[in-house]
Parts: sequence; C-alpha cells; structure tokens
Amino acid sequence: MTRGRAPTASLVVKVGGSAGVDLDAVCRDVASRWREGERLVLVHGGSDRTNQVAELMGTPPRFVTSPSGHTSRYTDSDAMEVFLMVYCGALNKRIVERLQRLGLPAVGLSGLDGRVLEGTHKRSVRSVENGKVRVLHGDHTGTVERVNAELLELLLEAGYLPVLSPPAASYEGSAINVDGDRAAAAVAAALGAERLVILSNVPGLLADVDDETSLIPSLTLAGIDAAMASAGGRMKKKLLGAAEALRGGVEQVVLGDAREPAPVSAALAGRGTVIAVSSREE
Amino acid sequence: MTRGRAPTASLVVKVGGSAGVDLDAVCRDVASRWREGERLVLVHGGSDRTNQVAELMGTPPRFVTSPSGHTSRYTDSDAMEVFLMVYCGALNKRIVERLQRLGLPAVGLSGLDGRVLEGTHKRSVRSVENGKVRVLHGDHTGTVERVNAELLELLLEAGYLPVLSPPAASYEGSAINVDGDRAAAAVAAALGAERLVILSNVPGLLADVDDETSLIPSLTLAGIDAAMASAGGRMKKKLLGAAEALRGGVEQVVLGDAREPAPVSAALAGRGTVIAVSSREE
Repeated sequence: MTRGRAPTASLVVKVGGSAGVDLDAVCRDVASRWREGERLVLVHGGSDRTNQVAELMGTPPRFVTSPSGHTSRYTDSDAMEVFLMVYCGALNKRIVERLQRLGLPAVGLSGLDGRVLEGTHKRSVRSVENGKVRVLHGDHTGTVERVNAELLELLLEAGYLPVLSPPAASYEGSAINVDGDRAAAAVAAALGAERLVILSNVPGLLADVDDETSLIPSLTLAGIDAAMASAGGRMKKKLLGAAEALRGGVEQVVLGDAREPAPVSAALAGRGTVIAVSSREE
Repeated sequence: MTRGRAPTASLVVKVGGSAGVDLDAVCRDVASRWREGERLVLVHGGSDRTNQVAELMGTPPRFVTSPSGHTSRYTDSDAMEVFLMVYCGALNKRIVERLQRLGLPAVGLSGLDGRVLEGTHKRSVRSVENGKVRVLHGDHTGTVERVNAELLELLLEAGYLPVLSPPAASYEGSAINVDGDRAAAAVAAALGAERLVILSNVPGLLADVDDETSLIPSLTLAGIDAAMASAGGRMKKKLLGAAEALRGGVEQVVLGDAREPAPVSAALAGRGTVIAVSSREE
C-alpha cells in the first residue's frame, strides 16, 4: 500500500455482466464475507444487457474498430441513455436489492454521483470502415483518471457497502462511458485496498481462449505485457486494469470465475489467475 | 419542527416527471439556492417516461382501478425492471449530471440504497374489470412508512446534495413502487425540514382542473380533506402528501409550477398553492 493510514476497504470486487455470471452467488459470497468483518467495494459491469436493451429500444449498439485494431462501443447520446438505464437502473439497483435482502447496508452509486470517477471526455473516435478511417463525433467516452475516494470512504466508515457502476463524470460533469475493470482498478488503488478480484465468465487468463483447462495460474506485473499481446479484447482490459492496480499499490489482483458457487472466496483462495508485482519465489 | 436539533436540510423539493416539466430550470434554480447556502434534498418522479419506455420494451404499463375508484400502476416484475431503469437510471442520473455540470456535489439515490425509504410490500391489488373485482398477485408496491434519514444526513453533513427517487425497499429488502409525492413528504418530515415544495406541470391546486386561472392560492390542513374530494388522481396524492408533511412537523407545503423559469424560488415566494397547518390570519 502507498497510503499511510489503514484502508477503509481491504478489497475491491469487480463483477462483469456477461452471460453465465451468477450475481446471486456473488452477492451471497460478498454478504458472508461482509458479516465476517471484511470491508469492500463492489463494482459491476453490464455490457451484454445494455446491448439487449438497446436492441429492444430500437437503438442497436454500435461498435467501432480503431486504426490500431482496438474495438470499443460508440456511445452517442441515445447509447448513453440506454447505458444509464441498464448500468445505473436495472443492474445497480438489482444488485443493491439482492444485498439488502441478505441484510447488507448496500448503497448504489455511479461514477457521476459525487464525481466518484472522473476523466477526460473523449468526444470523437476514429473508426475503420471498409478500409477507410472515419472520425465519428458526439462520443461520450473516456478513461478514469481520478477517483474521488472521499464519498466511498464516508460511506464505508459509516458502515455502508458501496456498489459502484460506470459511467464516470467528465471534468465538465457529463456522463462518460468508461471501462469497468479499469475503473475498479483505479478505485482499489485510491482506497489503498490490498486486493482486487475481477470476476467474469471464464476461469481467468487462458493460454488458449477456446480451452478452459489452459488457465494460467499466476502472472507477474512484468509478464502482463506479453500476456496482453495474445489476449482478447475484454481480457486485455482486465490485464490493463491489473497492471494499473498493481502500479497503484494494490498487492494482488485475481482474475476469477464468476460462475463458481462462492466466486469471491474462490478467487481469494487462488482459483483463477493470481497477479502480483513479483512471484512468491522471487 | 418536531426535532430538537437543527435540520440538516431546511427544504425538500419534489419534481414530477410529466410533460412540460423543465428539469433544466429546476436544476438551475436548485443550484443557485444551494450556492447561497440553502441545504435541500431533491426528490423526483418519472411516471410518464416509464410508460413510454415500457411501451418501447414491449411490456406496456398496466393500470388498475380499485373497488374504491383509486387508480394505480400494477407493478409486476417486468414493470419494476422498467421502473428501475427509468427512475434510477435515466432520470436520476441525468438530474445528477445536470447538477454536476452546474458544479453541485449531487449524489443520486433510490429508496433501496441504505433503505432510505422503507414500507410494507403489498403483493396483491384488487382490480375492477368489466364490473367484476379480480385480485392480481405479484404486485410490487407499497407506501413509505419509515425514512432512514441517517444516510441523507450523512451526505448533507458532508456537503453532498442527495437526489432521491422511488422505489422504496420493503422490510424484506425488495424494491417496491411508492408514490413520489408522499415519499418526499415523509423525507421532509424525517429531516425536520421547514418547507416542502411539490412541483408539477400545473400552477398548483385548481378549483377547475380545466382552467389554469382557477388556482386556489392557499389552503389549511383542515381544508385538505374537502379539496381532495374534488381533486384528480395525481393531485389527490399531492394533497395527501401535503397533509402527511404538515402532520409530521413541516411548516409549509407549496404546490408549485415546474414550468416557471425559477420554479423552486417562485413556489417559495408564494406562487402556487401554499398549504400550512393554519392560515396566517388565524
């Protein structure tokens, strides 16, 4: 840890919104750990459900591929409306509801609330279409550059469990779409948390993405760059988040499987890909 | 006020979600009052937009009329999903965004978060259909019976502006649809606020609902029952909320016009229907 005082949360858990993710199991596990005294922040995603609702609403999602080959969601005003509805409405409040039903004092927040997550508003994106590069304007995206931890700490110190969701706030106060894994990493670093668990619908980092038995059990910060070269889009963001968390003082990041019966505890017991600045043998 | 110590907010503002309501004007007015030192809680509705999104999502809203002639939304699980998306996602976060853009430290909450709003879960509703009374099960509604003011006070004392939205939490922790006007009244009473402003797309209580010049400028608590007899469904809830706020120690309730350029200040200056326990002359 880089901070002088005790952290208000020792753990940040990020859970994705992909098919197969068992939010009930995540919440039950979080609840049992909370009752044992562990203090944590839960961060969640919601990309797949956002795509479904966007289709239903008649504004299908649009993805763009940058000249460097990076794929991202083009978040115009309509897309942000659906994003807010799904992430901050349906998903955030259903997670809060699950935790409240388990007796936990959950409080749901977006990055806009109290500007917990802040970053620069990226208003345009370069898109490769039919071999030509186009510039699309009206984008509402960015990257978390600052975490205003005061609000999270206020809630944690008063006994509440923060459940945090993108979007972030731009420095002008507008909603911007940010990556949830990297946001969770920034929160873990800002709170001085010891561990970050990133759960999704795979066992962790796989040597072969089509083979779930090819799990890479551990990785060092130095090995992340090489791993990123062969990882898919979503896993790249998780590895990038892991590197950012470790550089920010987090001791250990685990990429775990949200389909496990007790997914947070399984990840913390080492099931998944455990990433640290250096290996234990060193 | 019924409380011994100074209130953390002197004012609660409720703004409805009907056509014509100018949320930009409400937020600008709230911002200018906040900058002058006034501490308040903003509560909002969203019924009309919820109906629109429910239609788009293929789950049109269903309203039931009780044997006593009272009309209400039947909130089954699908309807609650849309309710959460619109109230807690699109509307709550867009209001927070507006306030953040104006430099205010807004924090959006639903009644589920920290169980700010709690009540009994009403699981069935009697509905008159073709002259016959049917009982519909699977309803998720209720009335706010408790306000857990601690979270609102924690935020206000730390300098944040709470922006609060239905649903409430049942005592079991489930989301229940509650009336926003009555929720705002309960919040005002619980915080020991001096005044409650309820804004909608009419000038206030009208003697003739079809004639906007027929505004009733003032009313006493004793006169509310008679006024309710002739009021429409939405206005009935506002009057019920007003009575509950006054009985809970709030000094003055104003039913104001959200279409005004500075709607909160106009209402507080007496434009609208001013309701108090007794008239000034008494």
